[in-house]
Amino acid sequence: MSINSFGHLFRFTTWGESHGPALGATVDGCPPGVSLTAPMIQQWMDKRRPGLNKNTTQRNEPDTVEILSGVFEDRTTGTPIQLMIKNTDQRSKDYGDIAMTFRPGHADITYHQKYGHRDYRGGGRSSARETAARVAAGGVARAALAQLAPQVQIKGYMTQMGTKSINPAHINWGEIDQNDFFCPDAAAAAEWEDYLAWLRKDDHNSVGAVIEVVARNVPAGLGAPIYGKLDTDLAAAMMSINAVKGVEIGEGMAAAALTGRDNADEISMGPDGPVYSSNHAGGVLGGISTGQDIVVRFAVKPTSSILSPRKSIRLDGTETEVITKGRHDPCVGIRAVPVGEAMMALVLLDHLLLDRGQTGGVRGPIG
Amino acid sequence: MSINSFGHLFRFTTWGESHGPALGATVDGCPPGVSLTAPMIQQWMDKRRPGLNKNTTQRNEPDTVEILSGVFEDRTTGTPIQLMIKNTDQRSKDYGDIAMTFRPGHADITYHQKYGHRDYRGGGRSSARETAARVAAGGVARAALAQLAPQVQIKGYMTQMGTKSINPAHINWGEIDQNDFFCPDAAAAAEWEDYLAWLRKDDHNSVGAVIEVVARNVPAGLGAPIYGKLDTDLAAAMMSINAVKGVEIGEGMAAAALTGRDNADEISMGPDGPVYSSNHAGGVLGGISTGQDIVVRFAVKPTSSILSPRKSIRLDGTETEVITKGRHDPCVGIRAVPVGEAMMALVLLDHLLLDRGQTGGVRGPIG
Amino acid sequence: MSINSFGHLFRFTTWGESHGPALGATVDGCPPGVSLTAPMIQQWMDKRRPGLNKNTTQRNEPDTVEILSGVFEDRTTGTPIQLMIKNTDQRSKDYGDIAMTFRPGHADITYHQKYGHRDYRGGGRSSARETAARVAAGGVARAALAQLAPQVQIKGYMTQMGTKSINPAHINWGEIDQNDFFCPDAAAAAEWEDYLAWLRKDDHNSVGAVIEVVARNVPAGLGAPIYGKLDTDLAAAMMSINAVKGVEIGEGMAAAALTGRDNADEISMGPDGPVYSSNHAGGVLGGISTGQDIVVRFAVKPTSSILSPRKSIRLDGTETEVITKGRHDPCVGIRAVPVGEAMMALVLLDHLLLDRGQTGGVRGPIG
Amino acid sequence: MSINSFGHLFRFTTWGESHGPALGATVDGCPPGVSLTAPMIQQWMDKRRPGLNKNTTQRNEPDTVEILSGVFEDRTTGTPIQLMIKNTDQRSKDYGDIAMTFRPGHADITYHQKYGHRDYRGGGRSSARETAARVAAGGVARAALAQLAPQVQIKGYMTQMGTKSINPAHINWGEIDQNDFFCPDAAAAAEWEDYLAWLRKDDHNSVGAVIEVVARNVPAGLGAPIYGKLDTDLAAAMMSINAVKGVEIGEGMAAAALTGRDNADEISMGPDGPVYSSNHAGGVLGGISTGQDIVVRFAVKPTSSILSPRKSIRLDGTETEVITKGRHDPCVGIRAVPVGEAMMALVLLDHLLLDRGQTGGVRGPIG
Repeated sequence: MSINSFGHLFRFTTWGESHGPALGATVDGCPPGVSLTAPMIQQWMDKRRPGLNKNTTQRNEPDTVEILSGVFEDRTTGTPIQLMIKNTDQRSKDYGDIAMTFRPGHADITYHQKYGHRDYRGGGRSSARETAARVAAGGVARAALAQLAPQVQIKGYMTQMGTKSINPAHINWGEIDQNDFFCPDAAAAAEWEDYLAWLRKDDHNSVGAVIEVVARNVPAGLGAPIYGKLDTDLAAAMMSINAVKGVEIGEGMAAAALTGRDNADEISMGPDGPVYSSNHAGGVLGGISTGQDIVVRFAVKPTSSILSPRKSIRLDGTETEVITKGRHDPCVGIRAVPVGEAMMALVLLDHLLLDRGQTGGVRGPIG
Repeated sequence: MSINSFGHLFRFTTWGESHGPALGATVDGCPPGVSLTAPMIQQWMDKRRPGLNKNTTQRNEPDTVEILSGVFEDRTTGTPIQLMIKNTDQRSKDYGDIAMTFRPGHADITYHQKYGHRDYRGGGRSSARETAARVAAGGVARAALAQLAPQVQIKGYMTQMGTKSINPAHINWGEIDQNDFFCPDAAAAAEWEDYLAWLRKDDHNSVGAVIEVVARNVPAGLGAPIYGKLDTDLAAAMMSINAVKGVEIGEGMAAAALTGRDNADEISMGPDGPVYSSNHAGGVLGGISTGQDIVVRFAVKPTSSILSPRKSIRLDGTETEVITKGRHDPCVGIRAVPVGEAMMALVLLDHLLLDRGQTGGVRGPIG
Repeated sequence: MSINSFGHLFRFTTWGESHGPALGATVDGCPPGVSLTAPMIQQWMDKRRPGLNKNTTQRNEPDTVEILSGVFEDRTTGTPIQLMIKNTDQRSKDYGDIAMTFRPGHADITYHQKYGHRDYRGGGRSSARETAARVAAGGVARAALAQLAPQVQIKGYMTQMGTKSINPAHINWGEIDQNDFFCPDAAAAAEWEDYLAWLRKDDHNSVGAVIEVVARNVPAGLGAPIYGKLDTDLAAAMMSINAVKGVEIGEGMAAAALTGRDNADEISMGPDGPVYSSNHAGGVLGGISTGQDIVVRFAVKPTSSILSPRKSIRLDGTETEVITKGRHDPCVGIRAVPVGEAMMALVLLDHLLLDRGQTGGVRGPIG
Repeated sequence: MSINSFGHLFRFTTWGESHGPALGATVDGCPPGVSLTAPMIQQWMDKRRPGLNKNTTQRNEPDTVEILSGVFEDRTTGTPIQLMIKNTDQRSKDYGDIAMTFRPGHADITYHQKYGHRDYRGGGRSSARETAARVAAGGVARAALAQLAPQVQIKGYMTQMGTKSINPAHINWGEIDQNDFFCPDAAAAAEWEDYLAWLRKDDHNSVGAVIEVVARNVPAGLGAPIYGKLDTDLAAAMMSINAVKGVEIGEGMAAAALTGRDNADEISMGPDGPVYSSNHAGGVLGGISTGQDIVVRFAVKPTSSILSPRKSIRLDGTETEVITKGRHDPCVGIRAVPVGEAMMALVLLDHLLLDRGQTGGVRGPIG
């Protein structure tokens, strides 16, 4: 199995380094006849791209996506779709001493240990720029979902920055695009603005975050026992994003503190099928979707590229202190929001096709 | 890709239902020449099997593993290893009304919705009995690791039961096998004993748990960008276990609350290579092992099979209350400990072989 | 990817050795709700099993298939189906000196070279007994095809034994089961009978064969560019059978001798869609089925296990002569007929599901 | 599994259409530290590219390969290698009526039937231009083999054009690059020259061919039972090439006519290990390499794009006659030679890595 690929039937492979000529995604298995144009993908790219505001890296990349194959007269042909994003603002000089020094908390050292030879410029393959390719691939998945399951809605947002959380009671999807943080709680967004400004300018520091991604109106029956579970694939999808250290479905880690009585999502019969009293399960039971909201959360660690000195070593084993200058995100979690949405779309489409393949989409009737 | 399989080069497929004649694992890609006997696997089965003490289900299954292929004269031949565990104590009568009623929080309803036809006896394929097959496959992985990387140690333990956590300062690996909970903290174990007795006998309830699995002395360099990351596969491995709702690597969800300065594992040079001041990363950077302890945690939800009544519906849509009699674990998290260890072993061996395949095990030198 | 597995969505893994306790197939991805019983599979096993007549090995194996999982109340549940066939007539003494001597033309030497350790009894994993597991898996595929595409007919037969070919003009499907050779030409069958008797009893020799497998009424549109082509998978399927050395689709190797004018299957419009003037293509264009008969042929080499002495070496490098006593097929091609049919069924079902997954089975209209 | 991908550990995915902006290959799993530059790949591209002489299509494509990722300072980094070849000479007007008419013997009709929507320009995805991407990927495999197994030599050549075969006794590798046909027999090449000129200019026709690819000095032990066999993968690799209708290993289809006594490659002990009296097996026993020459042959059908009229139908079902003008190869088999070599290199490298992964490259000793 290809180590830079993800997905079963709808499968993408990302390629490219931070400072190479381009990066992209090779998307295979897309249904034919799906309406798809570069602008349809670009809208998602624009949410993730750097330099949008002062809270993200000032690297200036238009992140323009080009469709090189698999689409003819604005519709997919069912053959591989190549998405290419040229790198335009590399400024390699910013990263000169990275070649010989390992940044603490960064993949510099493990890439060197594993491969012996690495593209150190801008983090090379381990750069968060790789997530641009995911968002592009996710754009294809979104387009296919729009055609195959138009009722599905996917929405991601930040619920925590550092120690500061939103008030879950104040979640308002309409608020998400009104601030620089994809924050669904206007009060929290205001507080984060001040906090991040101080952290960046005065504290020369960075901070972690929690992102929640919700998919509404996903039909019951997606996913499969036992290693192709929907939640298994969602966990893998989110954990594969740079800097992610934890993934939760529904109650997540908090499920440990619950009793069986409290955790049970009681079932009653509604006009259109089963209705649940709660959603501790996060929309997945036994690896298969229930029809409730699919709720996934993941934690992003703070970037290791900060202006504060940290102890480290050089390639030759000598000790040093590292300060990472350059243009880094004080909270990479912000730009992880569209990435999480993309991964949700990619997993859902893949499972929609898998389910259609195995079962033909037939459902056991209730009532 | 097979939906009931896991792994890349070392790959296993589990099969079987709770109340069928047998279940097992088909293990493919094992290195040849590995010492392997049924008792070597049985030792791990015995840690997971039911009925060991009053804190686990009273179903009485010896869970005897048989090796049907792939081993000759007590050594692996490099061909598929079939591991079979016969089901001996099915008592199908316990589960009679399950056929027509969906237990809240259980996969009954989603299996029905997806497949239209399911083996409802004892939960069928969705039963936690499937994890016996994982533990058997994990026994093969352990045997191979013992030969290829004998320094690697894998240890799992419970760190939380319901709202009651261990004191991390009191973790003592020697304590883990001294109590019924795989608890590394003797004081916590005593407290859990009383709590679980009350929960089971008086409260007719169940409770969740957190399990931590640590792998020591794993060489640096295992894992691969970007979708074949070591942490991606660990997250998938753990989330694929029944009832798991959250997975963490190193700091896990708590990483969100840290700043970049605090989260940096500073590096210095030791006699045998890089030494880290801390292990927030949980032994993985950029998806590749650092040589530090690999630290994974996962949360297990409380079992939905309890003696307390919960509202639900029947196949015909009518509403009902469900009480699950029968022999269920009040805290399934306990028996998830050897399962988590097995998944760790399976992922590590797979990545050891993958790495050897791609890189030949060559490492970039430091110092 | 698992090296002992075959298929994409409908995927099976075979396991087991000639003289171990059992062998079988783990079948994953079967659609749910398919009628399936052990006798339904057994009918195909009985066509392949040894000892049926004097022209096949006299090893006496009932080859009784047991379904251990994935089927409930005689219908598939969509979960893995484990098929087990116990070995009952091993007579290991027949194979005593095989441990130390390599038979020319046999996998003894390559298994030893690759793995260093092998189950030499009866050829171990390299024995043609493995094909029993394929036929069992093929029985599942046949059952699923019977439900999803009941119009599809699959028929295999021998067209050549040694230098003696059938007369293609005399092919009569009704004749195939009337002789010991799955020969569709009664006159050829009579001739083969005498030839094989002489070869076996007087010449102490064995002989090769060509098998043709035809699938009728396969819908247009199965297969996919470019590496998941229908013909690619058929070629892999047939070449994976023991002793096969060549595979042809339609004209096969003879296509080289044709001109473009002669090779063109001209198209006209029939009442139900396109009609072709000929079928040089063997039912596949661009890797996708045309709706014409799928025609595959493969050549089986003569078995290397013969009573005539051949020069070889021992494990210690010393030279020797090998005579293989025991119970061997004078023409293994005979029993390869049901195996080829099974592989055809397995590939077709897999592609039917793959196509349904990606395209939903929608077809571009003509006319 | 990705339908446009090939390989297990070393895996490539091709993308792109004949008349799109570009096509290419995404190569994953390459060992790190391999010397690789664009000119190293270009040398193989130049053997396949069109317009080299009057015997191939006059389409003028430089087929310049660009490396977009995975290589840093002229060495591979172990991350995905993106190879892009821009299309420069599309002349879409040549193909105008293809949109509405199906060429007999061409994938036009099956692509339409399967996908409902296709890029008809120049055959789109089904064009033999896709093989440029294979040759590029093969160039990476060649570079890796040069480092990991420098003794391996791969050579392809045509052995038959139409009904005209070479004399096997006259095979001379030195002759192969001395004529327009990759023909190893100078006398045959001269005859083919006249024949093809007549066929192209006077007969307005095309013709098929047989190509043989040989790999020398491949170590014993590559390949794996039972579905990951070396010959299974070679058969799939060759059958996946456009227009291939048959694949043979060693004796191939002719093995059917042999007896066991004649087919046995007798073994004796040489100074460096086993020595064989003949190579009927084509270097593969039980799916595993023996150390002898790997010998693969495949038949390429004549192209269906000819100037002679053939009966066909239009999209609307009306009948018509098709004459394909444009720039087509009178014998596509010629340019299939470097493609077959590329596929051989890709399969061998993949199996070298697979074997190293599973066995560590340890070999059972003989003598």
